[in-house]
Amino acid sequence: MANKSTYAYLGPVGTFTELALAQVKDAKNASKLPVSTIQEAIDAVLSKKAFRAIIPVENSIEGGVSATLDALANTKGIRIFGEYLVPVTFNLVAKPGMKLSDVKVISTHPTAYAQCRGWLQENLPKHSQIPATSTAQAALALLEKDSYLDAAIAAKSITDHYKLTVLAKNIGDNKNAQTRFIEIGLADVPTKRSGKDKTSIIVELPDDRPGGLLEMLEQFAARGVNLSRIESRPVGDQLGRYRFNIDAQGHIDDEAMAEALKGLHRFSPNIIFLGSYPRADKGKSEHRGNNSNKEFDNADSWLKQLRKGR
Amino acid sequence: MANKSTYAYLGPVGTFTELALAQVKDAKNASKLPVSTIQEAIDAVLSKKAFRAIIPVENSIEGGVSATLDALANTKGIRIFGEYLVPVTFNLVAKPGMKLSDVKVISTHPTAYAQCRGWLQENLPKHSQIPATSTAQAALALLEKDSYLDAAIAAKSITDHYKLTVLAKNIGDNKNAQTRFIEIGLADVPTKRSGKDKTSIIVELPDDRPGGLLEMLEQFAARGVNLSRIESRPVGDQLGRYRFNIDAQGHIDDEAMAEALKGLHRFSPNIIFLGSYPRADKGKSEHRGNNSNKEFDNADSWLKQLRKGR
Amino acid sequence: MANKSTYAYLGPVGTFTELALAQVKDAKNASKLPVSTIQEAIDAVLSKKAFRAIIPVENSIEGGVSATLDALANTKGIRIFGEYLVPVTFNLVAKPGMKLSDVKVISTHPTAYAQCRGWLQENLPKHSQIPATSTAQAALALLEKDSYLDAAIAAKSITDHYKLTVLAKNIGDNKNAQTRFIEIGLADVPTKRSGKDKTSIIVELPDDRPGGLLEMLEQFAARGVNLSRIESRPVGDQLGRYRFNIDAQGHIDDEAMAEALKGLHRFSPNIIFLGSYPRADKGKSEHRGNNSNKEFDNADSWLKQLRKGR
Amino acid sequence: MANKSTYAYLGPVGTFTELALAQVKDAKNASKLPVSTIQEAIDAVLSKKAFRAIIPVENSIEGGVSATLDALANTKGIRIFGEYLVPVTFNLVAKPGMKLSDVKVISTHPTAYAQCRGWLQENLPKHSQIPATSTAQAALALLEKDSYLDAAIAAKSITDHYKLTVLAKNIGDNKNAQTRFIEIGLADVPTKRSGKDKTSIIVELPDDRPGGLLEMLEQFAARGVNLSRIESRPVGDQLGRYRFNIDAQGHIDDEAMAEALKGLHRFSPNIIFLGSYPRADKGKSEHRGNNSNKEFDNADSWLKQLRKGR
Repeated sequence: MANKSTYAYLGPVGTFTELALAQVKDAKNASKLPVSTIQEAIDAVLSKKAFRAIIPVENSIEGGVSATLDALANTKGIRIFGEYLVPVTFNLVAKPGMKLSDVKVISTHPTAYAQCRGWLQENLPKHSQIPATSTAQAALALLEKDSYLDAAIAAKSITDHYKLTVLAKNIGDNKNAQTRFIEIGLADVPTKRSGKDKTSIIVELPDDRPGGLLEMLEQFAARGVNLSRIESRPVGDQLGRYRFNIDAQGHIDDEAMAEALKGLHRFSPNIIFLGSYPRADKGKSEHRGNNSNKEFDNADSWLKQLRKGR
Repeated sequence: MANKSTYAYLGPVGTFTELALAQVKDAKNASKLPVSTIQEAIDAVLSKKAFRAIIPVENSIEGGVSATLDALANTKGIRIFGEYLVPVTFNLVAKPGMKLSDVKVISTHPTAYAQCRGWLQENLPKHSQIPATSTAQAALALLEKDSYLDAAIAAKSITDHYKLTVLAKNIGDNKNAQTRFIEIGLADVPTKRSGKDKTSIIVELPDDRPGGLLEMLEQFAARGVNLSRIESRPVGDQLGRYRFNIDAQGHIDDEAMAEALKGLHRFSPNIIFLGSYPRADKGKSEHRGNNSNKEFDNADSWLKQLRKGR
Repeated sequence: MANKSTYAYLGPVGTFTELALAQVKDAKNASKLPVSTIQEAIDAVLSKKAFRAIIPVENSIEGGVSATLDALANTKGIRIFGEYLVPVTFNLVAKPGMKLSDVKVISTHPTAYAQCRGWLQENLPKHSQIPATSTAQAALALLEKDSYLDAAIAAKSITDHYKLTVLAKNIGDNKNAQTRFIEIGLADVPTKRSGKDKTSIIVELPDDRPGGLLEMLEQFAARGVNLSRIESRPVGDQLGRYRFNIDAQGHIDDEAMAEALKGLHRFSPNIIFLGSYPRADKGKSEHRGNNSNKEFDNADSWLKQLRKGR
Repeated sequence: MANKSTYAYLGPVGTFTELALAQVKDAKNASKLPVSTIQEAIDAVLSKKAFRAIIPVENSIEGGVSATLDALANTKGIRIFGEYLVPVTFNLVAKPGMKLSDVKVISTHPTAYAQCRGWLQENLPKHSQIPATSTAQAALALLEKDSYLDAAIAAKSITDHYKLTVLAKNIGDNKNAQTRFIEIGLADVPTKRSGKDKTSIIVELPDDRPGGLLEMLEQFAARGVNLSRIESRPVGDQLGRYRFNIDAQGHIDDEAMAEALKGLHRFSPNIIFLGSYPRADKGKSEHRGNNSNKEFDNADSWLKQLRKGR
């Protein structure tokens, strides 16, 4: 068993990932281990340096985080145990004394940069940009001796950690932007069914069927299971081969979901179960049609009677 | 337990049903109970006067036998245990001495009559027709005292039983016509899985879904189960409401079929299982895709491991 | 052009078909030609002895009228121009003087007989039955000299035509039973689109595709066209080959229907268009999704612009 | 009309995009305009500074190029006129004199970096990384005065342009990696149908239907149109809303494709046609089932006859 008292996250302090970690109840009193890359976070879990790790999986503007999706597809023994939503609010920060009108060189993570393009074009049309590995890293770099950076775009919580001043608040182009984070750990019994769950899987399509994707979706439809996300990623060996990262409503302990998973296991040359866990949006995970556990049980009993000749 | 030594069939001797009964191995030494109607045959089974009954279910030209289909839908506790194909070969028979050119009044079962229309129009354009309850009954009526009938259309085996002469051989318009018969009995353990099986059910569609039939078919498709017959019948309470008599390839002990049946049980407001039994045409009953029992077992094991956290 | 002043119908006077004919507005002042069989009715149209013919196509209890369905499939140049619903109300009638308690031999059409089984078992358990070619024919036979029939089951309107007495009223087992009749004629421009239409076709499935029926239904679903009836009939050449008689909501001048028909024409080895005509139940014939003519036109314009490079 | 003699591409010289541009026949004698970002390339087309632009759209390992996909979704008046495949072969290059064993700081585009991770871990486990805006930019930076970079990962063609030495050849983890580039221009008549075409569109799903994706795919399936790529991207306004970038086999002048596009236009609240153009892999673009132009024409003629009453 991994050390339950350590949670890895994409650091340093002040990142959006840290805000996600703050939502994890069981991590309240845990020690926090900042890491630099998604791969390092996964490695911390695999090596049991951390019990769990918090990593971003999807941004409402930029889409799926490829590094996370690909790592989940290629790493064995990892499961998802929870998800957390963090509103993405960017501030432009600088060392005390800097004025907005003097800002020329800005640093931030490329994803953050892309989300503030509108504001930057309007307010700092002549700036130049230096990419950083995280928004917090960019902020931290402002404080380095002889830094040639004038300002950084970072999470608004950054000023809780560093002695920086806010030049402009909430400069993201989309004020409702969110990032979704997942809590990963070593394979273990799934998080208990709550009735408000989702299940994540990765499914590769068979090569030889033109309507493969349609057939895959019918495996869900035939059991009334709704999808909340489907995202294609290249398998990586050649153009034209895809696997699909799927979030479906419901829990592996829902019979509708279990049967859909088994159907996909037969259908797909390669399926990866990533976990069943509570939905961050607290929405119910009901199945369309008559596909509750009770209705599955009734159908089971009926079939057993038939086989006995009744 | 019903008396295993009695088999009911649509009589009298000389009917096509008797030819079907002759194919039933277990009935070799049984006593045969001729009955006049499909309902009587079913009643003989329900009252245990007969262990099994042989009744027609489908004709390659005339289609489903409505009386059989509706009786199966409305009678509880009846199952199908086998099916038998009988080639439909009609002869025109008469009392010795009658000549073809003298034939004016012909009797036969309406279905048989319909299947010989072409020959009759060509060879006896001026005949008149008297319907009978069976082809054998029509033949028998020729022998009645004062019969006003000149000839009867009956199975070629009729002359094995009655002293009649053949005026014309094989007069059916379609030389490949066949009738399919089923062996019914009280609900009991289904006939053992042979790998060459079919399963018969009756499924009512939910009222409230425009694409109900499509959804029903997807329950089969999602498990790779092929249909060999689908026939609509009115539910009977109002126009526009149908139930479907379905024969699907495979046995209730095939996991693909069992799961499809359970899916239909959840989907349909009313489903009737009629039985799993060997196909008369000896064709294999394999399931498309990866839906063999072995693949179902593998998927089951996989899911159990996941639930345990492995 | 056929003689517009003559309508054929299944006679004699007093049949349910005559009641359907009474609903046909354009036939108000036409002369009526009673015929004995569905084939005669069709022949009357083909030979232009009649402009139109009224024949039964479906009964809410007994299902499709096989003779009609098969004749429509096998006769070229015939179209449907309207449909009419007739409530099926049966009376038991006899010659004046007969008492119910004395009735032993009953005659009627087999379909009518089947629909009164419950009442007969309860009230006349010991009767014997003589089949007739129509309910009116059975009634008429009561009046024949030396008739050995005691009573007939016929439409309640029969006593408008013949001097008969009613022994029991409304004896059908299902008080809501209806028969649907169609008005057929030589192929001509379809009845004008009313927004409350249906379209009838017969579609044969390709031999070589296990999911053929599912594919066929998807041709309707992809254009939002709802089916109101689907009924299988054997093609007739061998067991296991079916064609489907289909009624779908909408008119051939609805673009959704037209595109679905063209899709089925490509899909099916044999498709027969039987006609577009107003629904007897006056229900609207709208198409699911965004499939109105206006939306089809918009899509057409859009595509044309794209092809022009705009 | 834009100046046909100028093609924009992601520069500087030595990029993979330049290799794609070298495949464009019509650009043989054109002047080439290097730009730094995908947005700049698009802007060059919109402002008519360039007739066409070559930009990457998909990498066999990294997947879709989000910046391209999102720009295509959000920019009006742009179309795709061709696609080009470039094998991705990376070399590690440095200024003459540098030895592999001395390399500490490496620069390249993050995507290139990700694709060489395996080689780097094995051969230069202790290196540090500086991201660049393109592989060629990284190579160029080696030559800057006082550069603190030791080596760059770039296309093997880089040494055709700059005086650099190759420290290691073909260091990509996947030797079959490819990048697909597209040629974009202002909306114009699509590239002529060749029988080996693909069509690119972006389709947003309706909000209110759980099986929306399945329904969308059925629009293709009902006309036998095969998909070669489907990739989800967030719409960007909130989590859980996706649009799909789709490449389908066939040309807008194929009737099957045209009808599918029109079906999608009715189905989708927002559909963008990006173009029909020859497939880079030269594969045929046939449609499943009976969906050739000839079969569409036959169905059209049939329907027209029906409407005329024949």
